[in-house]
Amino acid sequence: MGDFTEIEKEIFYKIIFSRRDVRRNFIKKKISNEVLLRILTAAHHAPSVGYSQPWNFILIRDKKSRLDIKESFSKERLKSIELLEIDEERKRKYLDLKLEGILESNLNICVTYDHKRFGPFVIGRMTIKEAGIYSVCCAIQNLWLAARAENIGVGWVSIISNNDLKRILKLPPTIKPIAYLCLGYVKNFEIEPDLQTVNWLSRLNLDKVINYEQWNGNNRNTQWKGFNQHLNRTNTSA
Amino acid sequence: MGDFTEIEKEIFYKIIFSRRDVRRNFIKKKISNEVLLRILTAAHHAPSVGYSQPWNFILIRDKKSRLDIKESFSKERLKSIELLEIDEERKRKYLDLKLEGILESNLNICVTYDHKRFGPFVIGRMTIKEAGIYSVCCAIQNLWLAARAENIGVGWVSIISNNDLKRILKLPPTIKPIAYLCLGYVKNFEIEPDLQTVNWLSRLNLDKVINYEQWNGNNRNTQWKGFNQHLNRTNTSA
Repeated sequence: MGDFTEIEKEIFYKIIFSRRDVRRNFIKKKISNEVLLRILTAAHHAPSVGYSQPWNFILIRDKKSRLDIKESFSKERLKSIELLEIDEERKRKYLDLKLEGILESNLNICVTYDHKRFGPFVIGRMTIKEAGIYSVCCAIQNLWLAARAENIGVGWVSIISNNDLKRILKLPPTIKPIAYLCLGYVKNFEIEPDLQTVNWLSRLNLDKVINYEQWNGNNRNTQWKGFNQHLNRTNTSA
Repeated sequence: MGDFTEIEKEIFYKIIFSRRDVRRNFIKKKISNEVLLRILTAAHHAPSVGYSQPWNFILIRDKKSRLDIKESFSKERLKSIELLEIDEERKRKYLDLKLEGILESNLNICVTYDHKRFGPFVIGRMTIKEAGIYSVCCAIQNLWLAARAENIGVGWVSIISNNDLKRILKLPPTIKPIAYLCLGYVKNFEIEPDLQTVNWLSRLNLDKVINYEQWNGNNRNTQWKGFNQHLNRTNTSA
């Protein structure tokens, strides 16, 4: 297959940078069968350890299930608030955050991991046992970016009990829920992450998460000097 | 931010579908500082639980480290072969597979997870403890796709001992290696995954990994009938 051009790269990065974790401003418009199929096909084309494709996508529109899942969220959210009780300011901020769009979004998707698929011998998973779960996460990121390209918002709700999910969605014991996602068209995509807007946390400068040759590696050696200078000239936290 | 057009979506999907897990045919061309910075910036713009950005990227070009890591691979690969000894045909196939490009690729990147970053209270991670690791995997997939857009191949080597990685890269005890990636320009990108070409495994039909409303949900109910028909009319395993 051919090379991508400068213009094609630019479009790709625009999708990467404008993807948001969306929890509000969902609108009523339905996701069509054609669009949903494209998004799921993108997820299914993620890399997977030993080509094991260990994911499932449970599509949920049923109101009753969503109400039950929302109840699980509310219960877990209260538990989290208790963990913050010594810090009054953070607690207040946390209480103001909108953290899920379970009922307002057009579609919920539970993404699960099946350890047994094509097993027990899966190339690469004999050494790194968790590698199958990593594959599922790659599929989730494909799904998320495809949704953004389709102008659809996605929010990952992690304040949910996996035991509740297993009960509500009738998952067999061997199936592990990895993500609970809310998808829908939105009024608009925000220009920065919500948690940055409300000053919960800021994006780190890229140089804080780059290491040279080893954990405490020196960026002043000849090999990496040029890269490090280029990095410092570029604003990478925007 | 504005909506993406049909042409822009098409380019995005072309990148998704032409991304490969690359272990051979690396060429000598160096990845420039500008290109490397763009790829890492894309990774750093992945979603993360509670905006915790718990990743680090260790950039490795040093020959000595790579030789040590290759040695770890060779050792672990032998262990895996032993697990296959009852199945002579699969064993022969496995022995023929090229599973890493540690020495031939231009650059190796070890992606790690830092549980302590912005902790202990990370929104969403109080309920799902592993959510921070999931975030790192999303960053890896962003990196992988960005590399493909830049016409650079990436191979994820999971036949490596994490203990060896920690020793060779001098990782502190709290830092967990998640992925060991080999990056470089390639002669060409294959049109299908290597493990499919050699008939190790095939891509599943998409309908095998889609569930309706719950694990054993019925796709014949009114809500999902149209989607299911559309799915069956479309070839999704290509």
